[in-house]
Amino acid sequence: MTDQITIYGSPVSPYVRKVLAILDMKNVPFRCVPVVPFTAGEDFVKISPMRRIPVLQQGDFTLPDSTAIAHYLEETCPEPAIYPGDAQGRARVRWFEEYADDHLGRNILFNLFFQRVVRPRVLKEEPDQALIDEALDVNLPAALDYLEREVPEGGFIAGDASVADIMIGALFRNANWAGWQIDAARWPNMAAYLTRVADIPSLAKMNALGEALMGTNPREHQTIVDSQLAAA
Amino acid sequence: MTDQITIYGSPVSPYVRKVLAILDMKNVPFRCVPVVPFTAGEDFVKISPMRRIPVLQQGDFTLPDSTAIAHYLEETCPEPAIYPGDAQGRARVRWFEEYADDHLGRNILFNLFFQRVVRPRVLKEEPDQALIDEALDVNLPAALDYLEREVPEGGFIAGDASVADIMIGALFRNANWAGWQIDAARWPNMAAYLTRVADIPSLAKMNALGEALMGTNPREHQTIVDSQLAAA
Repeated sequence: MTDQITIYGSPVSPYVRKVLAILDMKNVPFRCVPVVPFTAGEDFVKISPMRRIPVLQQGDFTLPDSTAIAHYLEETCPEPAIYPGDAQGRARVRWFEEYADDHLGRNILFNLFFQRVVRPRVLKEEPDQALIDEALDVNLPAALDYLEREVPEGGFIAGDASVADIMIGALFRNANWAGWQIDAARWPNMAAYLTRVADIPSLAKMNALGEALMGTNPREHQTIVDSQLAAA
Repeated sequence: MTDQITIYGSPVSPYVRKVLAILDMKNVPFRCVPVVPFTAGEDFVKISPMRRIPVLQQGDFTLPDSTAIAHYLEETCPEPAIYPGDAQGRARVRWFEEYADDHLGRNILFNLFFQRVVRPRVLKEEPDQALIDEALDVNLPAALDYLEREVPEGGFIAGDASVADIMIGALFRNANWAGWQIDAARWPNMAAYLTRVADIPSLAKMNALGEALMGTNPREHQTIVDSQLAAA
């Protein structure tokens, strides 16, 4: 297991930042190639059949899917742990990881960030306002009501900072980039929690990297990524 | 850990059959309450925030999501293993489990089975033919081309029968129920593989249970499930 790890995927994606933050926490050396799936060529489908990012490559081993990658990193580089030590705690983290990847991802990333940021700025298309409204007026408030009850008043989802906290923190940063801010009067518990997760050092570093890429020319992204990761 | 496990969810769902087959393989006693998400009351959202099945309940521990449940069962009842013993093998199984749950699930379950079976028979609605055509003419052939290259000529995705094989086998059974049959001349490797996975004893048993519910009155489902599981 001496081959270096390469992560394909732009750190603007919260799924990519989840994996980069885990690598940073575990102090694993890696390279990041900031691929964007909708401009990647047909060759990209060979390593990512659902045309998604991130993809991990290590020697001749290729692995798509941020959750499969998170487990692989936990098993090959166990310290510090990103899943709790007990089966029910791990189950709780896996559930919130899935809830974030799927339900929050669809609303924050596709309905909000993609419509408000990617379509107008990158694809030069009109956003679909109905999707934005559905996310902002219906689905995100319902999700925040649920999370407000579930996150503890201090600390994280299950003990120490886990992959679920990292993913939730990464996703809500994309919501911020799309102009959304939490209503701390309505969801005080979640507002405090989102501040705590944003302060997880490895996630803060990768959120800063993602932010450094926003609004810059994609041709410069590899240079920005390399220099920020070397300086970090 | 002496509390009995209850699985909420109808065995017509391949995600429910995946979990029931795992419980059966591991010889874990369980009850199954055949909830259908689109007719379940608002209380169901309290145990399944994405309104999906299955949900596991054990004492006061509640866990939605078939993949989180599969991991929980593997960790609390390790034998026989449903994930391989090595990290790269486990990663490969987790990737195919995700590919099946997400990509195949969307096409087979939502675009094909839901449109062709659930909408006309249960909801008394017209199916969306465009979704059916997209699944049959574009997405499923592309997925079968991919799987044709990936599955081995004999055996399973990674060593012994794993959760990925169980999920793929469960999903394609729903495709059969929606009138689809594999073109064995075009995908000979996948045709042989689908026969092998359908013969995994615990999956065969749960596929038969799902089939026994098709076309029967939902009010009779609990009785059918209880009697078939008692006889099995």
